[in-house]
Amino acid sequence: MKWYLKTGPDGDVVISTRVRLARNITDYPFPSKMSPEQYQKVEQIARDALMESRIQPKHDFEYIDMARLTPAHAMSFAEKHLISPEFARERDGRALLLNKDETLSVMINEEDHIRIQALFAGMQLEDAFALADEIDDVFDEKLRFAFDENLGYLTQCPTNLGTGLRASVMLHLPAITKAGAMPGLANAVGKFGLTIRGTFGEGTAAKGAFYQISNQVTLGISEKEAISNLSGIAGQIITQEKAAREQLRYLPELEDKVFRSYGLLTNARLLSADEFMSLISDVRLGITLGIIKNKGLEVVNALLCDAQPATLMTTAGRNLDASARDQLRAQTVREKLA
Amino acid sequence: MKWYLKTGPDGDVVISTRVRLARNITDYPFPSKMSPEQYQKVEQIARDALMESRIQPKHDFEYIDMARLTPAHAMSFAEKHLISPEFARERDGRALLLNKDETLSVMINEEDHIRIQALFAGMQLEDAFALADEIDDVFDEKLRFAFDENLGYLTQCPTNLGTGLRASVMLHLPAITKAGAMPGLANAVGKFGLTIRGTFGEGTAAKGAFYQISNQVTLGISEKEAISNLSGIAGQIITQEKAAREQLRYLPELEDKVFRSYGLLTNARLLSADEFMSLISDVRLGITLGIIKNKGLEVVNALLCDAQPATLMTTAGRNLDASARDQLRAQTVREKLA
Repeated sequence: MKWYLKTGPDGDVVISTRVRLARNITDYPFPSKMSPEQYQKVEQIARDALMESRIQPKHDFEYIDMARLTPAHAMSFAEKHLISPEFARERDGRALLLNKDETLSVMINEEDHIRIQALFAGMQLEDAFALADEIDDVFDEKLRFAFDENLGYLTQCPTNLGTGLRASVMLHLPAITKAGAMPGLANAVGKFGLTIRGTFGEGTAAKGAFYQISNQVTLGISEKEAISNLSGIAGQIITQEKAAREQLRYLPELEDKVFRSYGLLTNARLLSADEFMSLISDVRLGITLGIIKNKGLEVVNALLCDAQPATLMTTAGRNLDASARDQLRAQTVREKLA
Repeated sequence: MKWYLKTGPDGDVVISTRVRLARNITDYPFPSKMSPEQYQKVEQIARDALMESRIQPKHDFEYIDMARLTPAHAMSFAEKHLISPEFARERDGRALLLNKDETLSVMINEEDHIRIQALFAGMQLEDAFALADEIDDVFDEKLRFAFDENLGYLTQCPTNLGTGLRASVMLHLPAITKAGAMPGLANAVGKFGLTIRGTFGEGTAAKGAFYQISNQVTLGISEKEAISNLSGIAGQIITQEKAAREQLRYLPELEDKVFRSYGLLTNARLLSADEFMSLISDVRLGITLGIIKNKGLEVVNALLCDAQPATLMTTAGRNLDASARDQLRAQTVREKLA
């Protein structure tokens, strides 16, 4: 089963956990400086290193030539957070290695030669790191990574230098958001070398109170320290969100809002992406508070992927204009939620 | 069965038809000039004239001493259009005679001594007039009405002088309203001696596109002419509304709006009177266009009465503040519509 069809630990607040490692192969320039031949060569080397490794039988990685995907299909991977949006947009010379349950994705020739990503439902930082680390070891057995004794792993962008590790937790924080406490929280989080921003939609505006908190420091800190630091702060935010939800639990206005959003989602014939995010956020909160009883978080989590624009078009098997997408989104949501 | 639980001819556009006759008993001043003893006397005379008449077995009129009603109970009669709001507010010395299916109400000591009202579902002007006229005849057998050869029936307010007849049709005109054609229509209607205004809510603002069209001229015109004039114009408006609805039938935006309103009505936990009127108007339109298939107009028509503030309190058997009313309204609507 795909990871995003499950819920994990602290699933009422945490949608998913992601750990990403950036690696480059020595003797090759960074992707932005590579020739087409070098692109091909790096792709071949990285691909073989994993697909022919001892762990391939266990993980069953699929090789996906990004250049052969339609733009919508590529973007649907980004909507599931399996790849970066940039990786979906510029597909020439790039490849994706994806395991069966989609907990592991390896982007080849993104900003760095190899980006290993482990993605779990719920709060599972240690497990996600352990899995990414395991894949890193497999590559390390066959490839020589660009590494400096003092600096650590060398990466194209200096912000990744050192551990090359970016760990993030996708949080649903409707109660903290409603309480107006997000700006203060974002400020406090920054003081611990972390950053928090909206997960969906363009720019940094948080649609539906979904946020991503991640580490910013990669230099002069161990992987374990970075993970532990993020884990501690995220844990405090989870506690704070749960307490804030308790304050909302018995408000008639909240019950009303949750059911109205549910009523719109299960009846609307046209749903924009933004409205969907806002309404599903209310319904998700309602489920965690026991206001909506006949639906589980799994349905909501799956919809958070399935109702995104490119995923809708990929499912439909054709390009759709905004109005046709709004119609298909409404239909998809009704079928899953009604 | 109460009239408002039924639908009548042209029920997709016409909620109800009402004909009212204003009469005063000779030898008594108009109510505003009467002493308490005269109030009592007129009440007794009018009551006996009807309750002891030959038609009482057929119509089964109930005598209701308005002074004994709670304010909410009295106002709930006004919400069903059985009495005037003024009659509900000032209840001393006033009585209501109401037949079993509530198609006939006789207000004693309203602005005039006797006001006979016939109220039917759908477009039934002739039948409503015939019924009111029948009751008028019954009173006429026993009482001497104030009548002038030249002026006709004498009434307290000069606007009723002559026939003492006010006929009105309650129309649901969502398509004409959406098309922005109401101001022009109101203007045109005025040129035929008719007036059209909102039916629900304070003042003249039309809540939910429900309107009442009625005759203004009572002097120098026969009852039949007045009824026929109103019938003709109302018939044209009905035709116009039906044509305008056909324009809307296949708009995806309309289907979306109808279902959203249905979703809110069947899920909200708090519903204000104004929001209810606006949403039920969409649902009513959706039913007539076949967009909503599992509900009939009867349910909507009944809710138009049942969800009004005083009727809610009367059903609950106690006074409710605005927030408790909004809660009970939402519950009532959910139960009837879900």
